[in-house]
Amino acid sequence: MNVNGTPYRSIWLNEDGWSVGIIDQTKLPHVFELTDLKTLEDAARAIEIMQVRGAPLIGATAAYGVCLAVREDASDEALDAAYARLARTRPTAINLNWAIDEMRAALRNRARDERLEAAYARAAEICDADVETNHSIGRHGLEIIKQHAAAKNTGTVNILTHCNAGWLATVDWGTALSPIFQAHDAGLDVHVWVDETRPRNQGAALTAWELNGHGVPHTIIVDNAGGHLMQHGQVDLCITGTDRTAANGDVANKIGTYLKALAAHDNGVPFYVALPSSTIDWTISDGVRDIPIEQREAEEVTRMTGRLDDGTVAEVEISSPGSPAGNYAFDVTPARLVTGLITEAGVAEASRDGLANLFPDKAGDGS
Amino acid sequence: MNVNGTPYRSIWLNEDGWSVGIIDQTKLPHVFELTDLKTLEDAARAIEIMQVRGAPLIGATAAYGVCLAVREDASDEALDAAYARLARTRPTAINLNWAIDEMRAALRNRARDERLEAAYARAAEICDADVETNHSIGRHGLEIIKQHAAAKNTGTVNILTHCNAGWLATVDWGTALSPIFQAHDAGLDVHVWVDETRPRNQGAALTAWELNGHGVPHTIIVDNAGGHLMQHGQVDLCITGTDRTAANGDVANKIGTYLKALAAHDNGVPFYVALPSSTIDWTISDGVRDIPIEQREAEEVTRMTGRLDDGTVAEVEISSPGSPAGNYAFDVTPARLVTGLITEAGVAEASRDGLANLFPDKAGDGS
Repeated sequence: MNVNGTPYRSIWLNEDGWSVGIIDQTKLPHVFELTDLKTLEDAARAIEIMQVRGAPLIGATAAYGVCLAVREDASDEALDAAYARLARTRPTAINLNWAIDEMRAALRNRARDERLEAAYARAAEICDADVETNHSIGRHGLEIIKQHAAAKNTGTVNILTHCNAGWLATVDWGTALSPIFQAHDAGLDVHVWVDETRPRNQGAALTAWELNGHGVPHTIIVDNAGGHLMQHGQVDLCITGTDRTAANGDVANKIGTYLKALAAHDNGVPFYVALPSSTIDWTISDGVRDIPIEQREAEEVTRMTGRLDDGTVAEVEISSPGSPAGNYAFDVTPARLVTGLITEAGVAEASRDGLANLFPDKAGDGS
Repeated sequence: MNVNGTPYRSIWLNEDGWSVGIIDQTKLPHVFELTDLKTLEDAARAIEIMQVRGAPLIGATAAYGVCLAVREDASDEALDAAYARLARTRPTAINLNWAIDEMRAALRNRARDERLEAAYARAAEICDADVETNHSIGRHGLEIIKQHAAAKNTGTVNILTHCNAGWLATVDWGTALSPIFQAHDAGLDVHVWVDETRPRNQGAALTAWELNGHGVPHTIIVDNAGGHLMQHGQVDLCITGTDRTAANGDVANKIGTYLKALAAHDNGVPFYVALPSSTIDWTISDGVRDIPIEQREAEEVTRMTGRLDDGTVAEVEISSPGSPAGNYAFDVTPARLVTGLITEAGVAEASRDGLANLFPDKAGDGS
């Protein structure tokens, strides 16, 4: 999407035809800085220190990491070492292993002198496929926004989102934000309520930065505010992303999503969740009961990073010293509160039947 | 309540018999610092710059401000000037005007040489009455906690609270925290989930500081987390305060209270609101519709105050620069989500009938 008028993806091949450009996301939202990946180690480090984040972008970066490794040494031994190095960067990221496996399959049984071209070709395909998936999610979501715009007849369509499910976490478009970017590009009058999303503030930091860069009207609010806005008719629909969707339509997403879904339900506001079908976990039939919730370090709650008036970035302690803090990273929103699941294949009812209708082949796997 | 083992009120007469001690609440939670008020101007400034905050404590400080004025000049002219000075400090604080009127009534028709003693006597009564009210709220709330402890039979009673409705906002005990302090003092095994309460973080800063000082087990959580905890049986009941209760039982309180009430309702967790009956607005029959919601400056959302590692307190910008922010200070929780209203006169159902049963004289006023 656009950054102040210039279109970007979150990862790209540079004009030299071999090195890889990324946005250093650790610097956002305070500084917009590009970085080049020129070696396997550059790519591995970029994933480790979270210069790139979001499952699809991590996968794409790993794919290009294999390309950079092949460039230096295309032997089987070097490739095995590259796969191992990349796999250790973020051990729990499913897309990472998927991308490494895809690259391995693309290079298997090829002569060494064919590997470089094959690697770059497959990495480009992985990126383009992600863009296509997210664009399709956006296309289906756009129809929903259009319906709201038509029903309203006049005035702005107000959409609330939580956390960051935008293009920075994918190669382009994002998931929850893809329909919003497409609605804005189509000339619809949309305005986004951006939950700041404590404790890591991905909403106020990243979603707001994305929307600002692309020129989409938006307002940052604290996570506490959405219920009040819905009560007073100031939200027409909600769209969030999800980290994992259970086969029954329950959705795990950033902590606090469940509270917004409750408020939407209480006020008759439609609540949509946007996702690529690759994040559906067909083996889990009860998401609220069975999706494990990660607990993270207390310092994410008690400390906060920001920019001092002199421009330097600093961390401050914001809580009462000596008080313990708990940090639950995700919650699970029951399917009964979800109006629909917006996927690349269309919009499904949030239920086993709804998902099975849209993905009949996959639905069989877990039953 | 206790601060690290030593009992305090939030305002007191010093041993010299005339100057007034307060805790400088602008320094909390980072520094615990006492300040003396020795003149009318000291008292007025303390209210203005929020060294004291919370309606009951503002009233008590204004009362002592009148005492300090009388001490320097007990003439009618000086008293009129003192009332006017104090009334301008926080124009919208109802308790402030009430306390000034009480002091005026106590001094009216008295000879100048009787006024000093009368003023200090009335100010002390105002403080003691507030302590008594909050203690009574706590006594009624304690019974509810005892029932939960008995029903649980074993283990900790987990109580979630939002914002700060503790002793720092009153003269002592607080409202929502009064039952919790009393339960802890009675030897019950209570643990408090403290919502940090963005944007001003009164939970993580003040409620956590109070509980820590008094030795009550507690854990700070982000405002997003309560729903997840309730979903997983980790909250036995919720108790919050309120800024204004409508005659139909709707309660206005810090933004985000409504979201917690929705989660409590969805998970069968009792949701109580503690209040002195003086905050019931008998003239409002539909709180959700008619209680006006203050909007405050965006900087409270986009900037954050905390302590740097070198110990200095600094403000940092935490949001994406250039993005607008909205700051709604309160929301209104509909009576249907409130299990009961804990007042100094007992626990009422959150309804016109429930309140009228408990306060038959007052209920007539607004109908």
